[in-house]
Amino acid sequence: MSTHRLEALTDGIFAIAMTLLVLNLDVPDVPLETAASAVPAFLLSNWPQFTNYAVAFFVLAGFWTVHHKQFHSIRHVTGPLLWLNILALLFVALVPFTTSLSGDYHPILLSAVIFDVNFLIIGIIYLVQWLYVSGNPERFLHASVDGHRIVQAKRRLLVLPLAATAALAISVIIAPGLNGFGYLIIPILLAALRR
Amino acid sequence: MSTHRLEALTDGIFAIAMTLLVLNLDVPDVPLETAASAVPAFLLSNWPQFTNYAVAFFVLAGFWTVHHKQFHSIRHVTGPLLWLNILALLFVALVPFTTSLSGDYHPILLSAVIFDVNFLIIGIIYLVQWLYVSGNPERFLHASVDGHRIVQAKRRLLVLPLAATAALAISVIIAPGLNGFGYLIIPILLAALRR
Amino acid sequence: MSTHRLEALTDGIFAIAMTLLVLNLDVPDVPLETAASAVPAFLLSNWPQFTNYAVAFFVLAGFWTVHHKQFHSIRHVTGPLLWLNILALLFVALVPFTTSLSGDYHPILLSAVIFDVNFLIIGIIYLVQWLYVSGNPERFLHASVDGHRIVQAKRRLLVLPLAATAALAISVIIAPGLNGFGYLIIPILLAALRR
Amino acid sequence: MSTHRLEALTDGIFAIAMTLLVLNLDVPDVPLETAASAVPAFLLSNWPQFTNYAVAFFVLAGFWTVHHKQFHSIRHVTGPLLWLNILALLFVALVPFTTSLSGDYHPILLSAVIFDVNFLIIGIIYLVQWLYVSGNPERFLHASVDGHRIVQAKRRLLVLPLAATAALAISVIIAPGLNGFGYLIIPILLAALRR
Repeated sequence: MSTHRLEALTDGIFAIAMTLLVLNLDVPDVPLETAASAVPAFLLSNWPQFTNYAVAFFVLAGFWTVHHKQFHSIRHVTGPLLWLNILALLFVALVPFTTSLSGDYHPILLSAVIFDVNFLIIGIIYLVQWLYVSGNPERFLHASVDGHRIVQAKRRLLVLPLAATAALAISVIIAPGLNGFGYLIIPILLAALRR
Repeated sequence: MSTHRLEALTDGIFAIAMTLLVLNLDVPDVPLETAASAVPAFLLSNWPQFTNYAVAFFVLAGFWTVHHKQFHSIRHVTGPLLWLNILALLFVALVPFTTSLSGDYHPILLSAVIFDVNFLIIGIIYLVQWLYVSGNPERFLHASVDGHRIVQAKRRLLVLPLAATAALAISVIIAPGLNGFGYLIIPILLAALRR
Repeated sequence: MSTHRLEALTDGIFAIAMTLLVLNLDVPDVPLETAASAVPAFLLSNWPQFTNYAVAFFVLAGFWTVHHKQFHSIRHVTGPLLWLNILALLFVALVPFTTSLSGDYHPILLSAVIFDVNFLIIGIIYLVQWLYVSGNPERFLHASVDGHRIVQAKRRLLVLPLAATAALAISVIIAPGLNGFGYLIIPILLAALRR
Repeated sequence: MSTHRLEALTDGIFAIAMTLLVLNLDVPDVPLETAASAVPAFLLSNWPQFTNYAVAFFVLAGFWTVHHKQFHSIRHVTGPLLWLNILALLFVALVPFTTSLSGDYHPILLSAVIFDVNFLIIGIIYLVQWLYVSGNPERFLHASVDGHRIVQAKRRLLVLPLAATAALAISVIIAPGLNGFGYLIIPILLAALRR
């Protein structure tokens, strides 16, 4: 199987999941007479929905770049690799739901845990996928992908699961509503790895 | 007509139908004060929605790989072939509706039957499509597609209709809410055919 | 401007509009105890939503093939041609709304008229587009497109506006809810033109 | 990183955001008996939703052509350029929300300001993106892109931020519900620049 159409399906599902996040943002439903004061109050009180939207959008974009980079190296798709991809996409398509749950019930531990575990699972699948294809480079990878790039990619693939774990830790130790800050370690870790 | 843009439309409709399934997952609507106990109870009681989401996502992904494989062999699209494809896409785009109906009314036989018949129809269309193009291989298929591959593909195309039939049988004989288990025969049958 | 990315945007908007039609199909909201009889009754009474879904899906697919065929001949996109395309896409993206309106209020003349006029406008835009590019073939068309094919395409482009007009006539003269039958003349006219 | 898949993600998110705008158009919910008079009244009173739909659709299409034109010149994507793109897409995906807010609360200044600022931010990001890549043309641009084209593109990139600013000015000085007229300066400015 060629990689081209799997990339097309993946790009489609990522693009749709990232755009459907917007449906979680509630438009206020207040009478026009009181709207001048009620609309700003409504939007302000819904700040967790907006931060969740931004976090989920950027983390999904991060996973998309991970997929992009892996498939830049992968030249051949087998059945198991295809279904590993589709399993990841099942959890990608689930993100609008877990983001909505987490935005609506931000003070509740369970909703933050579901949000973070969703990303943790995607991260682990993409890590497993890379271990799988890089364990058999002759079969799966382009000849130009050397051992250094394989190790470097492995390290980078730990970043998103680590961030989801940090978010989980914040949820449990500090407060569920602050878990989004856990994902701020992503650019820091990536910058550290770049050196 | 070239196959390229038909594949693009197909990839788009599959990606969107697979991602719209998430809109069927209800976010609970309970007051924040009782949410710590009400949200887990709500999610647990909605387990049929989650299993339906997973079943529908994987079965759609299965049909997508079927389409992918057929169009790997097909080199030319005619009017009848185009409209057979579009008829299949009509039922693909219907899956979020039949999944929602089946998740909301899982103990009702009719909703399980509609869910399974929807997949049965897609499976039959893709089988008919293959019989149609493989009956005229000089016109429709790449020269590299030999008789062995045509027969092998025919056998594989029976798997999804058989699974939908098994799901229908479970609905009628055992219980409508358990029909999802019928689709578990897909990997077993595919593995058996691979030998 | 190359035609490639305009085709990608067009394929995306058609695929999404065709799949969003499914959101118009209402899932019944009845208690589980009465669902065994209430669900079938609900679905039966909603038949105009289902016929509307099928009509809108096939007519949109028809417009998509019209676009596909035109851009098979077009080699160059200018500003006016781009914005003519985007105007058509505005009305394509509107179809889920006009289909929903027409399904919910099928006995009301206005809702049938809005549904049919929406398709009439798309049909006229694609006709104007072809008159525009075929009026300056050296600039817009591939060298292989001859006068015969230009005339043939013009005739075929009258089919969808004629069908929308027939649907309008049925709405006004017979009954708004039966306007969908107007689109049945499409395959008849296309078959007649093929001879 | 190649430009191909970033363009695919971008085309996907634009196509979806442009099509999701239709979900903001409310289908009336009135009894069938009174629908013949209530439906037209409802649609007429919702005119700001329809003008907003058209404005947002065309402005998004305008940004899409901006992206298309920039990536016609860009041959290489780096990390910062990728994330600038994704930041723009975050605000593109937000447009269905800000359009819905602005359609529902058109007389309220805040909702018009949010609508216009959303477009202003996208316009500024695409301007910054061009300043960034054109500041290092050897690295980012195709050799065929000369200084004249860089300056011309810079001028064109001011048009959308200027239109959003005009819309903001109309909101504040005249009336929030009339801000859509601000975007009418886009074709005028583009025509003036073409000379």
